[in-house]
Amino acid sequence: MLVFLNDFRVHGDEAEFETAFSSTSDYFRQQPGFVRHRLVRSISEPSCYVNIAEWTDQESFERALRNPAFQEHAVALRKLAASEPRLCAEVMSRAVG
Amino acid sequence: MLVFLNDFRVHGDEAEFETAFSSTSDYFRQQPGFVRHRLVRSISEPSCYVNIAEWTDQESFERALRNPAFQEHAVALRKLAASEPRLCAEVMSRAVG
Repeated sequence: MLVFLNDFRVHGDEAEFETAFSSTSDYFRQQPGFVRHRLVRSISEPSCYVNIAEWTDQESFERALRNPAFQEHAVALRKLAASEPRLCAEVMSRAVG
Repeated sequence: MLVFLNDFRVHGDEAEFETAFSSTSDYFRQQPGFVRHRLVRSISEPSCYVNIAEWTDQESFERALRNPAFQEHAVALRKLAASEPRLCAEVMSRAVG
């Protein structure tokens, strides 16, 4: 399981960022290899968000980024926020009990 | 839903860190309010890990940190890694489809 973490520092309007991100999310969930994602927002720094996305594998993720249909989403997000992406592999996963 | 993100930069042995983290994970999953967690490791910087934990609420999470039983875990992890914690709230969560 590939976990893609992306830190966003929003310099534009935050509601506008969430709307643009929602549209990007609609794009990703239609791509092969996408599993799920969650957007979270820092409680102490509300202009900071983190997207936590799960993909079956790195190749599918990179294919979704290379797709020309992704470019309009990338441009819209870049206007509103600076991002710092990190690709990670799962080491441990546990639920309550 | 509270999402607790903790960035770890390991300066000690990584296998030892994972063992210490596994023991900390065993502690947390017995605490009221814990839902699940996942430890991921950066692909490009293997000494960097991120713990992504879900809690029902902030009060439960803080109670688990104040519990004296947590202190031995905190000490063990601090010997092996520097950490940068962030408390976040969930904004959006979507699965494939």
